[in-house]
Amino acid sequence: MSKKFVYFFGKGQSEGNGSMKNLLGGKGANLAEMAELGLPVPPGFTITTEACNEYCTLGREKLFAAIQVEVDQALARLEKTTGKTFGKGPHPLLVSVRSGAAVSMPGMMDTVLNLGLNAATVDAMIKLTGNERFVMDSYRRFIQMFGDVVLGIEHDEFEHALESVKKAKGVKLDTELNTDDLKRVIDLYKGVVRKATGADFPEDPKAQLWRGIQAVFDSWDNPRAIKYRQIHDIRGLLGTAVNVQSMVFGNSGENSATGVAFTRDPSTGENQYFYGEFLINAQGEDVVAGIRTPQQITKAGSMAWAKSQNISESERASSYPSLEEAMPQCFKQLDEIRVTLENYFKDMQDLEFTIDNGTLYMLQTRNGKRTAAAAVRIATDLVKEGLIDEKTAVMRVAPNQLDQLLHPVFIKSAEEKACKLTVGLPASPGAATGMVVFNADDAETWANAGKTVILCRIETSPEDIGGMHVSKGILTTRGGMTSHAAVVARGMGTCCVAGCGDIKIDYKAKTFTCGNHIIKEGDWISLNGSTGAVYGEKVATVDPELTGPFGQIMELADKYRKLGIRTNSDTPYDTEVAVKFGAEGIGLCRTEHMFFEGDRITSFRRLILVAETVKKLKDQNDAKTLDILKSKCADCKKSLQAIAQYEQALAELLPLQRTDFIGIFKALQGRPCTVRLLDPPLHEFLPHDSKGQQEMANQLGCSVDEVKHLVESLNEFNPMLGHRGCRLGMTYPEVSAMQTRAICEAACEVAGSKPEIMVPLVGHVRELQMQKEIIVDTIALVEKERNCKLQVKIGTMIEVPRAAVTADKIAAEAEFFSFGTNDLTQMGCGFSRDDAGKFLGDYVKWNVYEYDPFQVLDQEGVGELMRIAVSKGKAVRPDIKLGICGEHGGEPRTVEFCHKIGLNYVSCSPYRVPIARLAAAQAAIKDSGK
Amino acid sequence: MSKKFVYFFGKGQSEGNGSMKNLLGGKGANLAEMAELGLPVPPGFTITTEACNEYCTLGREKLFAAIQVEVDQALARLEKTTGKTFGKGPHPLLVSVRSGAAVSMPGMMDTVLNLGLNAATVDAMIKLTGNERFVMDSYRRFIQMFGDVVLGIEHDEFEHALESVKKAKGVKLDTELNTDDLKRVIDLYKGVVRKATGADFPEDPKAQLWRGIQAVFDSWDNPRAIKYRQIHDIRGLLGTAVNVQSMVFGNSGENSATGVAFTRDPSTGENQYFYGEFLINAQGEDVVAGIRTPQQITKAGSMAWAKSQNISESERASSYPSLEEAMPQCFKQLDEIRVTLENYFKDMQDLEFTIDNGTLYMLQTRNGKRTAAAAVRIATDLVKEGLIDEKTAVMRVAPNQLDQLLHPVFIKSAEEKACKLTVGLPASPGAATGMVVFNADDAETWANAGKTVILCRIETSPEDIGGMHVSKGILTTRGGMTSHAAVVARGMGTCCVAGCGDIKIDYKAKTFTCGNHIIKEGDWISLNGSTGAVYGEKVATVDPELTGPFGQIMELADKYRKLGIRTNSDTPYDTEVAVKFGAEGIGLCRTEHMFFEGDRITSFRRLILVAETVKKLKDQNDAKTLDILKSKCADCKKSLQAIAQYEQALAELLPLQRTDFIGIFKALQGRPCTVRLLDPPLHEFLPHDSKGQQEMANQLGCSVDEVKHLVESLNEFNPMLGHRGCRLGMTYPEVSAMQTRAICEAACEVAGSKPEIMVPLVGHVRELQMQKEIIVDTIALVEKERNCKLQVKIGTMIEVPRAAVTADKIAAEAEFFSFGTNDLTQMGCGFSRDDAGKFLGDYVKWNVYEYDPFQVLDQEGVGELMRIAVSKGKAVRPDIKLGICGEHGGEPRTVEFCHKIGLNYVSCSPYRVPIARLAAAQAAIKDSGK
Repeated sequence: MSKKFVYFFGKGQSEGNGSMKNLLGGKGANLAEMAELGLPVPPGFTITTEACNEYCTLGREKLFAAIQVEVDQALARLEKTTGKTFGKGPHPLLVSVRSGAAVSMPGMMDTVLNLGLNAATVDAMIKLTGNERFVMDSYRRFIQMFGDVVLGIEHDEFEHALESVKKAKGVKLDTELNTDDLKRVIDLYKGVVRKATGADFPEDPKAQLWRGIQAVFDSWDNPRAIKYRQIHDIRGLLGTAVNVQSMVFGNSGENSATGVAFTRDPSTGENQYFYGEFLINAQGEDVVAGIRTPQQITKAGSMAWAKSQNISESERASSYPSLEEAMPQCFKQLDEIRVTLENYFKDMQDLEFTIDNGTLYMLQTRNGKRTAAAAVRIATDLVKEGLIDEKTAVMRVAPNQLDQLLHPVFIKSAEEKACKLTVGLPASPGAATGMVVFNADDAETWANAGKTVILCRIETSPEDIGGMHVSKGILTTRGGMTSHAAVVARGMGTCCVAGCGDIKIDYKAKTFTCGNHIIKEGDWISLNGSTGAVYGEKVATVDPELTGPFGQIMELADKYRKLGIRTNSDTPYDTEVAVKFGAEGIGLCRTEHMFFEGDRITSFRRLILVAETVKKLKDQNDAKTLDILKSKCADCKKSLQAIAQYEQALAELLPLQRTDFIGIFKALQGRPCTVRLLDPPLHEFLPHDSKGQQEMANQLGCSVDEVKHLVESLNEFNPMLGHRGCRLGMTYPEVSAMQTRAICEAACEVAGSKPEIMVPLVGHVRELQMQKEIIVDTIALVEKERNCKLQVKIGTMIEVPRAAVTADKIAAEAEFFSFGTNDLTQMGCGFSRDDAGKFLGDYVKWNVYEYDPFQVLDQEGVGELMRIAVSKGKAVRPDIKLGICGEHGGEPRTVEFCHKIGLNYVSCSPYRVPIARLAAAQAAIKDSGK
Repeated sequence: MSKKFVYFFGKGQSEGNGSMKNLLGGKGANLAEMAELGLPVPPGFTITTEACNEYCTLGREKLFAAIQVEVDQALARLEKTTGKTFGKGPHPLLVSVRSGAAVSMPGMMDTVLNLGLNAATVDAMIKLTGNERFVMDSYRRFIQMFGDVVLGIEHDEFEHALESVKKAKGVKLDTELNTDDLKRVIDLYKGVVRKATGADFPEDPKAQLWRGIQAVFDSWDNPRAIKYRQIHDIRGLLGTAVNVQSMVFGNSGENSATGVAFTRDPSTGENQYFYGEFLINAQGEDVVAGIRTPQQITKAGSMAWAKSQNISESERASSYPSLEEAMPQCFKQLDEIRVTLENYFKDMQDLEFTIDNGTLYMLQTRNGKRTAAAAVRIATDLVKEGLIDEKTAVMRVAPNQLDQLLHPVFIKSAEEKACKLTVGLPASPGAATGMVVFNADDAETWANAGKTVILCRIETSPEDIGGMHVSKGILTTRGGMTSHAAVVARGMGTCCVAGCGDIKIDYKAKTFTCGNHIIKEGDWISLNGSTGAVYGEKVATVDPELTGPFGQIMELADKYRKLGIRTNSDTPYDTEVAVKFGAEGIGLCRTEHMFFEGDRITSFRRLILVAETVKKLKDQNDAKTLDILKSKCADCKKSLQAIAQYEQALAELLPLQRTDFIGIFKALQGRPCTVRLLDPPLHEFLPHDSKGQQEMANQLGCSVDEVKHLVESLNEFNPMLGHRGCRLGMTYPEVSAMQTRAICEAACEVAGSKPEIMVPLVGHVRELQMQKEIIVDTIALVEKERNCKLQVKIGTMIEVPRAAVTADKIAAEAEFFSFGTNDLTQMGCGFSRDDAGKFLGDYVKWNVYEYDPFQVLDQEGVGELMRIAVSKGKAVRPDIKLGICGEHGGEPRTVEFCHKIGLNYVSCSPYRVPIARLAAAQAAIKDSGK
């Protein structure tokens, strides 16, 4: 059987229905559905998206040959149904030709109205309606749209012609032109067509129709449609359908109108009144064009609108009456249809309607686009109204949308009025307002003095962590979405605009310039981390609301999700935020930030300075422990001195780390906490500028040359693949022991603590074994010293490909795996995140990778390494606890993947916890076959 | 049933046999076997290696309790067999106690002779033999050995005592001491023991025996034994056995003797005469001690020896007669035993014998250690003699040993006399002699002038490649076994000594100093790349011999191996060498070296300079090809100029590359050639010093700042994971097209060429797809232009972990996979080869990795990635061609692994081709169950 390419709809005779969106497009499927429901839909037919696909692959001629008979039949049926004739009087059938893909792409593709008009049908229409002006208005609209959309003539050419007539007559609005004016316009338009195409405007209605169909198909792959699909990540569609529908006319007089409406407020989700706009005596494009001021649907809405516009009630009632007032019958019918459609589609609808000479027609219904707040509100309201069940409500909210609700945001009107300096990369969402400072130390000083600051840097480095933490927002002039500033800010939930190339910072002068603006230290600026906008003044913000509908949708998510949700956090503050957002524990507590703050860095630098010497001494003396080493070096004062320095640094760091962990454990209130032992290479802790090196030398009482030599000796060709992770703990087991001791002592002090010690960068089970020995011994020691029984789990990151493929070996030693998908992506794909910018953008553009693998987990490749690890790990230890703690942990697609492969939890930055909760629930609901 | 720990041997009553080496050690098993064969073996018993293992794990007390009864029984049986009594007259039983592990570890463990002597048995022995001097000589030997080995008294203490008596008497040799002198020595020795241990020398023979056993067990884990096992990579042994054997006496008079012998020449493998030495009236250790000059076994051997020592025939006959002359009966018997043992063990034997009062006893036989030349010679000779079959012969030669036979080597006597400056790392084997030059350009100039040079550098870089290639040897003062110099030199088969820290190079003065030596440019030096020795003069070398036995063993290897053997080569010369060594094609032809030589680097730098500009223009203009871009940029002169420069650089490189390929294809004579497209990051091709940058600016007619900016912009944080491999070809498809064109045009010119184009660093199948499109199009173009039909295979490296785990996807596009195990190890294990030095040494020491994973493939981890790739690849494309081209490809263990997982070939550097051939044959033979 050959494919059916054309589906008729109208007056209870629809061949398609609302479930056939993929084939008929959203518009076509819903027109069919509405017609079946008995709603007043002008009849017509839909040419399928499959036809579009074959048009694109096989070419126009083949496809048109294949559908010609079906189109002719449908047209004949349309003539019969409407009692009109295409291209002929006395009742000429005019049609609209509109695009309509399975996913709405508003304004991206093309539409032609009033198709079928030519000299003969114009005459017939005049005879039929007795309204010459209306017919001429329709005819000039048709020539203009067809000329623009089908013939590819610049829109401006027609506008010029129209303007010249208006100007000659001295009027502003189209409605002010009379029949003769319009005839003049039509003549001018025909001249434009002749000039641009070298031929007369086509008279044959069949030819008009086929060219219209072709134009819609062609519009599927026009640049703006391609771009739109890229931006909105719309994939996997066959093409657009073509809807050929009998025309009804909103422009046929003062008893006609056209409008759009939402069944609820798309901005707040409130079900307060019927939200929408219309124009009398107009066709669809007039509403969008914005030349005339549209009127509101309901009286209540109209009055609210008038108030916001400072329009008096009398002026409103006379000049801008609502549909409810102007056409009460039609309004009543439309309001009933609103209820019918919401009840039927069980979602907020976006409607298009036309009133032709007092008769209401429905031209479109679709699920309406909405803000995050509205999405949450509508979903929970619909549950309360009994229209949808809880699972459906959970599925109704896009997890990533929630981000909008978790951060302070600018008050819209305030932001619109503010002085915009420039736009950078929207690196971490939210809104921030504060006084400019240019370095991390100043940020801390100012913040401690109670000031609100925004840290502006060319780029940030790990040493800036303290200043970043106290700042309301972070602005950088270099670096991308995965730069240090961006990654850290997202982790902290701090607003960040990155890579603002227009801004030039002068650290010495403590100013930055942007165009003609000069901003000094202490000046107020504002950042919109969701759009990248930078404002040169204070902009008012509102805080997020975490109860109400948001709280309800989160409750539902928790009810259905199977995955646990943890957070990546390494401060008590972040932990509290995350717990407030619903985190069930910490999945990744990095410990390296704890080495940076305040004096700690000095202690740690002292350790680094002598560590290599001590290690060498151990090797030379074949000494496994410092005690053995000391006994063997008893005669050498210099050796003993180095050992003492090493021990002293460790002793200084221990209580500081312990205090950190106490704070975090308290904030967790008995929730588990996965602590990762020291991970970054040691050179990250050293100063790389000569000033910093001089300071370090002074602080440690050594020479600058020593410091320089140290920095050089720790320099690496590929630090990503260097001496870091557990390799440090292997070389310097005392550091692992100190960290374990700090964790255990803190756990002894905070009752109910559940620490889980995680060994990073394990590639070989022997590394885990050897580190585990140290950890186990230290736990036993602390338990004995403090007479305290601890429950500590010991596990590892799976972030080295070798670890993934030897997970069976590693699981024998690990109580848990946590997938470090950042590094697993770097090593698995062979990309350095710092360098991949040179080609990764192209790779996504060329569809090598569907998404940037650092933002959305590469399920095919990196995911395969995870699947291998899960399966091998579980084979050896069926109850092994499995989690993910890379930045992917809060990304909805990745959360779904983690659910599918059977992880126990995902861990993400505090501000993504609600997103992960929702995504996890959606994954579970999808999985349960709903 | 409890374990049997003690095995008796002797006079056809052996409980063990030669197959029980793991349990009885090599010595014990072969003593049992010889006794069974009816050879004159003094009876005794062996305590098993299992006992040693339990001794080490359970401790002395438990083990001794477990074996006591068995030892007592064996001792009783020994008394019965010999008719002697342990610890009593009239026929006292004396025993030797010797170690003996399954694998020979000569001199590493301990031995005690003459055990059982005390006041009573000394008297009985004197009565029995009537030879008081002999008994006293045995007694003083016993006290000394027991004191040293069992009681741990410094050897020197006894030597001092002995010397004092000799001095008092004014003699030099032990044999010059009479009975009274020896008694005096014994008294002094007893004093030494008393002083060192605080107790008298133990009189109880049983106590002596147990303490002797204990000492042997203890010696298993003494530091030198541990070190020996590390060096020789001896693993998986339980411990040493203990052989307790009734004593026979080579020191009982002039009719007694002791000696060692090889059944063939262990140095050449020749079966010319019975090769060995003996001493009259001596015990075993005297032969080794080197105080007296040993005599030869055969008269022919003795005469040859005398000639080499400038000893006249008369002096020889009187002072150093051969055994054949001195004890013709014993010689005849020994010579018969030689034949018996060779026929029995079917291998060259290393024998120990003692003649006690005219009676011959065999104390040991084992397969003799031998040089590579001897191993090859003996294996092929034994086949000819019908003693072993071909497969056995193939298994008899250790593949890595062959390396000795493939490079020129120093004439031993010349090397011994040469002035040794220092010793560095033996980075690439062979011997080289030449005049010192200090930079690559000079090396080329001098070499072109017909001089023989050795390139001395602090370290080398890719820019030195030309100079390295023309040098006979390479010497660096920095860098390890995997430094650039080492890796490149091994690839070229050029001798290299690396990391010579003692040498300080002064580039300006063109000299180097080493201690007090100053070597100037043009001075002759010599390098031994197999030992790391550096000599300050010319040392004579000999070339390797590739026919004869070597050729025969290679023929046998080819007969049995299943794996193909290819080579890594990118010059006609290397290709010729490899083909001579038996390479069946090129498995990896790197193309980047082709961009370095001569003027090419200038062309390529020009390309790099404009490449980014051209790429940006393409993006901006949405132009896929240069032609489209040119048409779009027709108005912009500057853009057209950049494009023209880019095209010109490509046009310059094309004929040069083509010429390279023509040379290589000719050298291959129809063998296949896998060509890898450009791989290293572009910054490797740029100068990093300011002088070089100035030169580049001059050559390209641009500013130094432009060059500096270019270098900076190409700088990467982790170049290993950066913009390289096919990512270059993706960004600059014209480079892939140019390279493909060069390959194809060359293939058209050399009939029978079989190019295989390999896309490097593929991580995602889309990369391969996109590069393949370019390659396929270019092939079609060239075929059309040249009217020539080409057979080109297209495939990829598997070196990114993601590629391995998605090999099913990739195999759909690839006709072959070549495992790039260098990078696969780096990314799979997360090690940067350049940085891993900081911890990898420890990792191997701590047995995290059994071997350095860059030298021996990590079969468990990286190998698992390979297994996954093989299995997924074959599932989709059963006939996919699989190879390996990492440095591991010539490593015997890795070759065996590649055979096991079903690869089709291995590819290695030219000088490792014979090693790989042999290793492949051994893998196939093992696999076939032989």
